[in-house]
Formats: sequence, structure tokens, C-alpha cells
Amino acid sequence: MKTLAYAASKASAPLAPLTIDRREPGPHDVAIDVMFCGVCHSDIHQARDEWGGSLFPMVPGHEIVGRVSAVGAEVKKLNVGDIAGVGCMVDSCGSCRSCNEQHQQFCEKGVAYTYNGTEMDRKTPTFGGYSSRVVVTEAFVVKVPAGLDPAAAAPLLCAGITTYSPLKQWNCKKGDKVAVVGLGGLGHMAVKIAASMGAEVTMLSTSRSKEADARKLGAKGFVLTNETGALEKLAGSFDLIIDTISAPHDYNLYLRTLRPFGTMVVVGVPPAPTPVSAFSLIGGNKRLVGSLIGGVAETQEMLDYCGKNGIVSEIEIIAMDKINEAYERMMKNDVRYRFVVDMKTLSQG
Amino acid sequence: MKTLAYAASKASAPLAPLTIDRREPGPHDVAIDVMFCGVCHSDIHQARDEWGGSLFPMVPGHEIVGRVSAVGAEVKKLNVGDIAGVGCMVDSCGSCRSCNEQHQQFCEKGVAYTYNGTEMDRKTPTFGGYSSRVVVTEAFVVKVPAGLDPAAAAPLLCAGITTYSPLKQWNCKKGDKVAVVGLGGLGHMAVKIAASMGAEVTMLSTSRSKEADARKLGAKGFVLTNETGALEKLAGSFDLIIDTISAPHDYNLYLRTLRPFGTMVVVGVPPAPTPVSAFSLIGGNKRLVGSLIGGVAETQEMLDYCGKNGIVSEIEIIAMDKINEAYERMMKNDVRYRFVVDMKTLSQG
Repeated sequence: MKTLAYAASKASAPLAPLTIDRREPGPHDVAIDVMFCGVCHSDIHQARDEWGGSLFPMVPGHEIVGRVSAVGAEVKKLNVGDIAGVGCMVDSCGSCRSCNEQHQQFCEKGVAYTYNGTEMDRKTPTFGGYSSRVVVTEAFVVKVPAGLDPAAAAPLLCAGITTYSPLKQWNCKKGDKVAVVGLGGLGHMAVKIAASMGAEVTMLSTSRSKEADARKLGAKGFVLTNETGALEKLAGSFDLIIDTISAPHDYNLYLRTLRPFGTMVVVGVPPAPTPVSAFSLIGGNKRLVGSLIGGVAETQEMLDYCGKNGIVSEIEIIAMDKINEAYERMMKNDVRYRFVVDMKTLSQG
Repeated sequence: MKTLAYAASKASAPLAPLTIDRREPGPHDVAIDVMFCGVCHSDIHQARDEWGGSLFPMVPGHEIVGRVSAVGAEVKKLNVGDIAGVGCMVDSCGSCRSCNEQHQQFCEKGVAYTYNGTEMDRKTPTFGGYSSRVVVTEAFVVKVPAGLDPAAAAPLLCAGITTYSPLKQWNCKKGDKVAVVGLGGLGHMAVKIAASMGAEVTMLSTSRSKEADARKLGAKGFVLTNETGALEKLAGSFDLIIDTISAPHDYNLYLRTLRPFGTMVVVGVPPAPTPVSAFSLIGGNKRLVGSLIGGVAETQEMLDYCGKNGIVSEIEIIAMDKINEAYERMMKNDVRYRFVVDMKTLSQG
């Protein structure tokens, strides 16, 4: 099926229209008319080949919400007309230990990423949500609860699950003291979700201008981390830290703000490895851990949780042909807090 | 009470005899005639002021086993004649959250270390187990199970609990694949205890000469980590790593050998912070954590476990006046696997 898309033809090129070919839905496939696609920072990293190994042409986009337009004969959980979501993955082997444990993101054969990857045949390139239509095997399609605004729900498919999953893994609960480091696309979801779980949330930020927003999103505390001694004063304060920062920063300073047996979850990727002192971990049995998105079942659980608690992303809707400007604004942190492309601007463009 | 001891008078001095004063046992105190005291690597670090802030004169020793010679009127769990143990701590505030949770090592007021510290009055210096007698409040004295050789049990008070605690915290169980990095005082206890829990243990070492011992102690696998590509070949292998190394090494290489959701526990302290890549943690939701000894109740639990499973340390018994030579041999890793001072050589010396 000929499908309109927006693509990077090479690392140095701005994104531009491209017609791609989507497969006809097979018996297990769901065809989705994309309504909205969130714009994730990793779209920029990959379109510009900043992590290496990018495949071009590349159609980015892994925060996809749309309406089901067709389903294969074997499809059971979705019907034509449903509002559906697709996140960072579109397939996996389905039979390894990680897949069996519902952690498809760690498929031992290598997951099929939504874009900048290949299908499990390891040949067919995958193309993401900056397009008018996607065709995805049912097992990797989730249902978007009625009541969630489809545009504002789109970022839940990556930013939402990336922050929900570690909060669940590390048992965030009522009364816990949780710090969120950095108020961007990930950080603002972490604040909302942690606050909804009953945690007392403190925003750790380098920008005083974020304080009002942080409090509106649910943070009870706000600490400017670039003030001298600010982090030292927080020694032993937090049960859990969600660190969304991808700029260089000293993990040891943050580890000190944890209580004994506290956990710091890294979801941002600084440009270079961060020196970690063994004393920072041993004193207080501290934990420095990573978390990568979440499995499909956990993503559905997250969406259902957000539906029940009325949680969506704070978004700015843009037209598809404004994507290059949006990337430039994101590079300057000039978005509160997620761009979402309205995909009807693509078909009409 | 005048008490014979061996002490460092300053960082650059060899240890030499010194007579110290021990308090008369109060109503909650237990007086113990020291029979054996293990020699921990941290004794050297502290006696030589390698971590800074050492207090002199210093009587090292925190792997203490002896016979109870007197008990205060309020003492309930110990009687004269019992074989008792004292580890790294001799007191704590007893009322903070950490103490209430039985993690006295993280007492918010600061624990009273067995030596190179002060009692909770923050004035009276503490003196360790290189001495003929210790007087310790009952709450910090544990019972050594009958059937454990007192000399070989002494190192359990530090090396044993330091490795038992993380294996318990991270739920080591039958069938788990556990790697132990480094076969020294800590590592050999980690192998024994993990194997006793039913784990399939792999020794990761830089010394082929340790292989036979590792296997005798319970390791099923042995990998020479300084062979090119050796760690790369182990990608995704282990549920749990106990890293006992205090020489510089690349945590990222070891994190790659973990399965998804696997944990690497650092109990050794390399001389400088180790650069950690966020990708090493995020890919596979890996965990890099620290662990510091264990609380008193957990130490008793460990001793009871070792009693039930016949686990003790591999030791070489030395006379007190050989301590300086023992330190030199430890600096060359020339001990398999723990020196233990026979304290009757002090009173008779």
C-alpha cells in the first residue's frame, strides 16, 4: 500500500515527504490510520545518526495513535474503528525467555524497532509513525482507552511507558519520596505518574523557570540543582530518583540524596560514561539502575492506568511540515513538553 | 580493665604491642576473651590511613570470635562461657529508621565502628579485636553456632556477612547463575555461600592459578577475564554478580554479562570512580548496586545459616607478632584466603 510519510534521506538532510510502501495486512495484522505521532528526542538522535548505524531513508516516530482501518482474519483484540497505539516496537521473536516474560524489548533475537530497524526477517526496513498509515502485528498494538485525548495520549507510548515502568518496577507508592531529575518530555510524565501513585515528588532542575510548571504537574518540592550545595543538603532524602537527563551530570551527587536501599533509575543517556564511586553505592546499599521502555502488556497496563487516572502528556500540536523547526526548538528545550504531529496535515499537505 | 592489644601508633608505623583500657562491663555489656580475630583488607587501609581520617593509636580487627567471660545484669541472650562474635559495629543510636529496620550499619546518627571510630558518646575511641578482650553492648554481640570452628568462623563476621547479605538481598536461589569476581577473602566466601544456596557459580578471575581452588570451593565455571574477548563471550549469562575487586576494572564489561534485570553488586572499592555508560544500564534494565556488611540480626542469621550448612572461611592462623608480615603478604595477595590471629599468642607473647 502506497503510504505518505516524512523521512530523512540521510543524516545531514532535513526531513521531507516520501512515499513508502506498507505491506497489505496479513491474518494477524492491524492497519492503523495514524492520527497523531509524538516527537521523541531519540527521533532526532537517530535521524541525525548521532548513535551510529542509522538506516536511511528513515521515517521516524514511535508514539503512534490512530484509528484501526482494517484487521486480519485472525485478529482478536482489535476491531475496525478502535483507537489504537503503537510504541517503540513492532515485533519480536515471541519465544525467547524475555518474550515469554513479556519483556519484548529485550528479545534475545533482537526486537523489531518501529523505525530505523528491520522486521524479524532482518531484511525489510521498518518505517515509523511520521506517516499516514502503519501496519503492525496485533501482538504489538495496544488499545487507547476511551476518554484519553488521542493527541495527548500519543507520547504515552514512549515517554509514558519509559517513566511508568521504572516507577512500577521499584514499587513507587503512597508516601514515597520521589525525585525527578529534569523536566522535559520524560520528566513531566514522571512527575505526573509518580504524583498519581501518591508519591511526594520533588523536581530537581537547573532551570528556575520550570518551577511553576513542575508544581502544576504535581511536584511538591522544587530544588535548583545548580545552586552550590543544593544536592548536598538533600542527603538521604529520596526513596527513588527518576533521572531523565541526557546532559553530563555527576551521578554520585544524586546517589547521595537517596535513603539507604534507595534506587536511582537512569532513563536519559548522557553523551559519555559517568564516573561512579563504589563508595556512593556501598554506603547505604544504593542502587543505580537503568530502564528501557516496557513490554507490550506493561504498555497496555500503563495506558489503562492513565485512562483511569486521566493522565496524558502536555503537548503542542504541529503540522507535519513543521517537523524540522520542531527539531530545532527541541534542541533548545523550547517545548512544553512534547510536540505531537497532527497527521491529517500530512495527507492534506 | 587493662587489656593487651596490638596497635598502629601512626599511619607509617608497623603494628606493635600496646596496653589499652577497656571499660568495666555495664548492665547491658558482654565481656569477651578474644580467641581469634580475622585480618581484613580494610584493617590495612585504615591502619595506613589510606581512606583518610584514621584515628591513632589504632587497634584494628573486626572479625572477632571469643568466649564470654562476664555479662552485665541485664544481659539476656548470652551467658558466661558462650562462644560469641563481634563484627564491624559495636553500637548505634537504636532509634532511627535504619536502626528500627535492623540496618544498624546505616544508623542516621552514625554507627560506632568496632575500631577507628568512637562510641556513641563521640568521644571514647573504639579499639578492635587485635586484643585479648573486648567489651561490647549485648545488642551488637552475636552467638557463634556450636560446630563451627571458632578460628575459621571469625572471618564470617565481616567477609561472611558482606557476601551473604547481597546474595540474600538479591534473592540468590537454586539454579541462578551467579558470577563471583575475584577470589580473595570476600570472593571465596561468596563462592561458598552462593553454591550452598544452589546457585551455579562461575568464578571470574585474572589468575589461572585460582581455578582449582575456585572449583573446590564450589564454582562450576571459571573464566580468565584478562583473556581477550572472554567477558564479551559471556554476554547475557548471569542473574547476579558479586564483584569483590578493589583494583580498577571496567564495570561496563561485567554489566554486559548480566541477563535482563540482572544485578551486579559491588562490595570492593576500586581506588577511583569507574565510568559507567547509561547504555550499559538501560539495555536490559541492569542494576549496579552496593552492599555494606549487614545488620546485627542479619549477621546472626548468616552465622546460623553457616552453622547449618557447615560453611566457614579458609584460613591461615598466625601469631599476633606476625601481623606486619601478614599485611605484606596480603598486599601481594599471598593468602588463601584469610589470616586469622590466634589471640593466645598475644597474652603469651
